Amino acid sequence: MTETRNILSLNAFRDTASLDAPLKRALSRRLRVLGEASPLFYDEPLHLSHAEGVWLYDHDGRAYLDAYNNVPSVGHCHPHVVSAISRQAAKLATNTRYLYDILADYAEALLATFPAGLSQIVFTCTGSESVDLALRVARRSAGAQGVVVTDTAYHGNTTAVAAISPSSGAAVPVGVDVRTVAPPDRREGPDVGARFAARVEAAIADLRLHGIGFAAFIADSVFSSDGVFVDPPGMLAETLGVVHAAGGCYIADEVQPGFGRTGDAMWGFARHGLAPDMVVLGKPMGNGMPVAGLVVRPEVIRDFARESGYFNTYGGNPVAAAAGLAVLQVIEREGLIDNARTVGAYLRDGFAGIAGRASMIRDVRGAGLYLGVELARDGRPASDLAASVVGGMRQHGVLIGLAGAQANVLKIRPPLCFSRENADQLLRAAEDVLKTL
Amino acid sequence: MTETRNILSLNAFRDTASLDAPLKRALSRRLRVLGEASPLFYDEPLHLSHAEGVWLYDHDGRAYLDAYNNVPSVGHCHPHVVSAISRQAAKLATNTRYLYDILADYAEALLATFPAGLSQIVFTCTGSESVDLALRVARRSAGAQGVVVTDTAYHGNTTAVAAISPSSGAAVPVGVDVRTVAPPDRREGPDVGARFAARVEAAIADLRLHGIGFAAFIADSVFSSDGVFVDPPGMLAETLGVVHAAGGCYIADEVQPGFGRTGDAMWGFARHGLAPDMVVLGKPMGNGMPVAGLVVRPEVIRDFARESGYFNTYGGNPVAAAAGLAVLQVIEREGLIDNARTVGAYLRDGFAGIAGRASMIRDVRGAGLYLGVELARDGRPASDLAASVVGGMRQHGVLIGLAGAQANVLKIRPPLCFSRENADQLLRAAEDVLKTL
Repeated sequence: MTETRNILSLNAFRDTASLDAPLKRALSRRLRVLGEASPLFYDEPLHLSHAEGVWLYDHDGRAYLDAYNNVPSVGHCHPHVVSAISRQAAKLATNTRYLYDILADYAEALLATFPAGLSQIVFTCTGSESVDLALRVARRSAGAQGVVVTDTAYHGNTTAVAAISPSSGAAVPVGVDVRTVAPPDRREGPDVGARFAARVEAAIADLRLHGIGFAAFIADSVFSSDGVFVDPPGMLAETLGVVHAAGGCYIADEVQPGFGRTGDAMWGFARHGLAPDMVVLGKPMGNGMPVAGLVVRPEVIRDFARESGYFNTYGGNPVAAAAGLAVLQVIEREGLIDNARTVGAYLRDGFAGIAGRASMIRDVRGAGLYLGVELARDGRPASDLAASVVGGMRQHGVLIGLAGAQANVLKIRPPLCFSRENADQLLRAAEDVLKTL
Repeated sequence: MTETRNILSLNAFRDTASLDAPLKRALSRRLRVLGEASPLFYDEPLHLSHAEGVWLYDHDGRAYLDAYNNVPSVGHCHPHVVSAISRQAAKLATNTRYLYDILADYAEALLATFPAGLSQIVFTCTGSESVDLALRVARRSAGAQGVVVTDTAYHGNTTAVAAISPSSGAAVPVGVDVRTVAPPDRREGPDVGARFAARVEAAIADLRLHGIGFAAFIADSVFSSDGVFVDPPGMLAETLGVVHAAGGCYIADEVQPGFGRTGDAMWGFARHGLAPDMVVLGKPMGNGMPVAGLVVRPEVIRDFARESGYFNTYGGNPVAAAAGLAVLQVIEREGLIDNARTVGAYLRDGFAGIAGRASMIRDVRGAGLYLGVELARDGRPASDLAASVVGGMRQHGVLIGLAGAQANVLKIRPPLCFSRENADQLLRAAEDVLKTL
């Protein structure tokens, strides 16, 4: 939830006086059927018509440069993916209780991108389902319940996963078997990796003190909702050691960094030179099709598999496999990992330049096309400024988001086909908006 | 899990000696990447190539009459649904934080099929996610944790939902806040409705005795995994009264009976003349696309919506909405509810006839195209016979499944476009197989 709460506008549910008639009508139709459970972005929500590449178009024909959505990772409505979905949907759409070759084709191609040992996958439909399954497997494997997460982690929305997602807010308390630790921030000093590992170790000790035991450490490999922390490379290696020494599983949540976004490699954990025990996949996996999964070491899941098994009606269906395979092909053919690295670096350089002229920028960080730009005023987190920047950028036709416990970090996370020209437009809009604040 | 466990063959994971080379190769590729967590049907799994209508085709070109799969409810690869998916995937695939008209179009059309008061929907991707969300909402609404389910209920696979799914087996215990009751069986006598309500009332009292409190009663409206219990119509009305008197929510799980399957109406609960507080939708909703949802009374979800909200990345995405809308159109245009009623009655009559010649059939029951045919020998549940029938029917090119606590109930649940001719083929195969036992 909080990945989003930061820039959600609940005004959209109440104050529609300033909206034009078609938008007001669309909004009121939606509110009647969806109610207030499903949040919307912006005071004046975007009323979308179609999309292509890095562009979203509204009903007035206005184009928005999408620097927020990581689900359409290879570009909105990519023709290769659309065509794969269309062909497979017309041919066979069934479930994994039957054999069909495209599932093995996809799984083999996907698993080939992982370190040795991470050699099996269980398919699900959403990142939340994958994390929920990872918890079931880890708790069975460890014979214990305790989980360690970061302070502002978001891992998903099921009962069990919301309970390990402190960013979900006060109405959704974390579980009694969960401990939270501050995320690793390079500004802690060169020993940030050791410091973070020490925090995890202390949390595990506290779980034991309470008789809960330790099952798993789980972290988004770029700490997105915590505020985007990626440096220094290698900083998580000591934590892996601590987790293993305590007999637990290291679960890498790659829903945000995975599929090439960091520009380093296919997976965010690679930046830190570690090989986790389980890896959670989601969002960009099918470029918009509900495709997700859990990559595992066979020895971690073996007992769970034999005793309980796992069946997910749509998980790994042929259309999902076709979409997933097409995404891998596009990433490879279009050199999107390289593009994420070079355009991401260009964006960070651009923001570093702006920072020299805009004192509210306290830090520019990130890897590949996942950037965090931290705003502060008088040395304190400036969440109001950050919200103004997001709103102002939208007026300039550029969509970005917010992250961090204080919602003061601009979250910039465009489709991986984002070009240098797109980056220039984003940087110009950011500078223009920052000037007015 | 157990919806399936009954007819799963774990032999497929071990004994491949009797399989031909291409099948052995396909199986070994799959086992390498998926391991043993994901179950397969049959000792000799089906190696599928394509599908159409009520037919699944394997790689040798053999056609199988599908009387098992309820996900492709309007027929495998229905061209109207495939076309809707293809068009929308090429146009816009985003999430519900933006406005797009097709979501309201779909939600309005769908909600129009519900009783007054059930006027809002939260979209998810799977039935499991919908049940998990229903539990979160019900527990928030009641301020209590207790849930009552039937003895062999299956509601899904998340941590929280597995804990209310006793059919998941001994390795997946139900929660300490869960009570189970025997399903209603018309053979209990004409007061089966009152008897069942009394069981639910006693379970609620026991939850209170233990200080757990009562949040919700949840039941599949046709009690599929319990063994298919649908008669007499109206039998659940008294239970609704008991649940409300205790301040809890009545959650109808319509993943199995919904979307016209019972031939009575769009929803299984309609057969019993009741209007629940929440309704869980899944499987057939998108005819194979991952589309699911939770239909709610606004007053039940209001506090949860305001305090916590709910966001599901792919839930209610434009492609899901397009698929869902196309499914509703096909159900209407092709008169599938009527077809379910007439062909379903024809099938039940056919089995009643076979029962006169095959003493192992103890009961034939069901509504529309959801049939249960209970097998017994010497007055005891005959699960071995039932497994032999499923295997024998497969040899005859007809796919069915099993249900019930003892796995002795043939589960017949074909796509809703199943014809009288298809029914004749199924009945002939069933009679042939039963003769050999």
